[in-house]
Amino acid sequence: MSGDVNHQIKLAARPVGLPKRTDWQFTETRVPEPREGEVLTRVLYLSLDPAMRGWMNEGKSYIAPVGIGDVMRAGGIGEVVASNHPGFAVGDCVSGGFGIQEYAALDGAQLTKINPKVAPLPTFLNTLGMPGMTAYFGLLDVGLPAAGDTVVVSGAAGAVGATVGQIAKIKGCRAIGIAGGAAKCRYIVDDLGFDAAIDYKAEDVRKSLRAHCPNGVNVYFDNVGGDILDTVLAQLARHARVVVCGAISQYNNTTPIKGPSNYLSLLVNRARMEGMVVFDYASRYPQAIRDMADWIGEGKLKSREDIVEGLQIFPEALLKLFSGENFGKLVLKIADA
Amino acid sequence: MSGDVNHQIKLAARPVGLPKRTDWQFTETRVPEPREGEVLTRVLYLSLDPAMRGWMNEGKSYIAPVGIGDVMRAGGIGEVVASNHPGFAVGDCVSGGFGIQEYAALDGAQLTKINPKVAPLPTFLNTLGMPGMTAYFGLLDVGLPAAGDTVVVSGAAGAVGATVGQIAKIKGCRAIGIAGGAAKCRYIVDDLGFDAAIDYKAEDVRKSLRAHCPNGVNVYFDNVGGDILDTVLAQLARHARVVVCGAISQYNNTTPIKGPSNYLSLLVNRARMEGMVVFDYASRYPQAIRDMADWIGEGKLKSREDIVEGLQIFPEALLKLFSGENFGKLVLKIADA
Repeated sequence: MSGDVNHQIKLAARPVGLPKRTDWQFTETRVPEPREGEVLTRVLYLSLDPAMRGWMNEGKSYIAPVGIGDVMRAGGIGEVVASNHPGFAVGDCVSGGFGIQEYAALDGAQLTKINPKVAPLPTFLNTLGMPGMTAYFGLLDVGLPAAGDTVVVSGAAGAVGATVGQIAKIKGCRAIGIAGGAAKCRYIVDDLGFDAAIDYKAEDVRKSLRAHCPNGVNVYFDNVGGDILDTVLAQLARHARVVVCGAISQYNNTTPIKGPSNYLSLLVNRARMEGMVVFDYASRYPQAIRDMADWIGEGKLKSREDIVEGLQIFPEALLKLFSGENFGKLVLKIADA
Repeated sequence: MSGDVNHQIKLAARPVGLPKRTDWQFTETRVPEPREGEVLTRVLYLSLDPAMRGWMNEGKSYIAPVGIGDVMRAGGIGEVVASNHPGFAVGDCVSGGFGIQEYAALDGAQLTKINPKVAPLPTFLNTLGMPGMTAYFGLLDVGLPAAGDTVVVSGAAGAVGATVGQIAKIKGCRAIGIAGGAAKCRYIVDDLGFDAAIDYKAEDVRKSLRAHCPNGVNVYFDNVGGDILDTVLAQLARHARVVVCGAISQYNNTTPIKGPSNYLSLLVNRARMEGMVVFDYASRYPQAIRDMADWIGEGKLKSREDIVEGLQIFPEALLKLFSGENFGKLVLKIADA
């Protein structure tokens, strides 16, 4: 390994609006030697997530921004190629925060061993990874769905949204998904078992919501913000819970974020809007992963990955998230297993 | 009584922006005879509240709008002058939803007897009435303040806000009030015991909040909405609770309500924004009134009323709420006790 080249992508500039190719720096370095306690991993798959856009901005958030000149932060799956940590052996499959690069030497304490027999590797970046954990804890701990509730989720064909709707069904709720385009809408109803889908690109979301949610929305899991958030707020049921998970429609704004004009619906309906960050639930990931793996095994929880290949296309691949072009969890394949 | 004139003010038109005099109709009718089960009350004081503006609008809200041609809805205090209900006798003091008029015949079940020895009558429209109940349940049940928390309240010299800050102090919190003008700011600190006041008309609210809340805002009780809500959202502490009680800055908008651009602070800080409507707590008013009366007796809870006199000036008096001209709970005196 030593002597091999490690290709990396670093953040070169803080983007204004959508990240441009010039916001990135393509570099190469030597594959590092793992130090005492470290594990050298060959990266196989990297997770591309809407949250990455926020990490590129300066300023206070739930996590420190990526520094200019730093390898872009990214979670991934890889194979151990050298280990100076007693918990890991060559050939182990691991997940960790490798960054957009081909090799990473990290402290073993920062890695999690995964069992490739449980599911295909990309699934560990989807239902069994951060998106799955976000859906699980966001819906169950913040959304507090009760059997019979109507649960609406936006970005419903995305990694988080697709899982939210399926968990809602598992918990005895009605699941209504908002997604862009007929193919995604068909997918969440026909393949994932949502009760209905609303195509925000083709339908009047307000009218469709009223039709599909005659008794109002008990839980709204928001991944998108903007006009869709506002529209759903106007349809809340009494004591509704709005889970603020993300706002992908607003991340590339060059103007201020659009606040929800209909927020006084919270007052009228004695409803609640609450934010969540998945990392807070880290101590409970093992239980969630057991539940999710069981549901996958029972055929109740399906996942779909949109796998694009090659480290060098990272800048363009990332943009698929913001155009809505990806279909399923967006994963960047770096190397063959 | 019978044969006497009952002056009334009815809603003549749905206002656009601030209510104009032509939105009201001044009428007179005969004082009604109480029917079986009814009580005829001579109205002494009426409560003027920001929420009245919402009741004048068409459309779904937490309460039906006042109909065009109906006597304007208002709560008040009065004296029983005739009773066909076994629970009430001539001379009793009662509170109820009398409307903007001099006499009202209501079913006894809609009235509450009050004891004028406990406090001056206008106090029953303030700390011992709806504003007090709103402050009590909004802060304690929705805001969930813990001793040591920093509690910020807007409209802090108003009927609800002044009580919120004082209850926060009683519960061992730091209380920071946002109010308009030096006199109101002095009042809430010097007379009511708030820890600090921010004069939004004279200060940079953001800078002052940062100075007074170095560890962030744990509870924000919002009566005003608009820019102040946005500014406080940016200063939330982890797991903060934002109580949405009102949005007086937005009630007379002729453009859409300004949504809070900084709502993603809820995500970053794992915080919650929740609406409340005081009527939901009706079954627990007696306990709250006992607590509040005790605190008044112990000198821990003070109230101030801004009393204006004469049914005919109702239209102009109401506008004082929106200009911020009133100082303390705005009460319209209709007649001498």
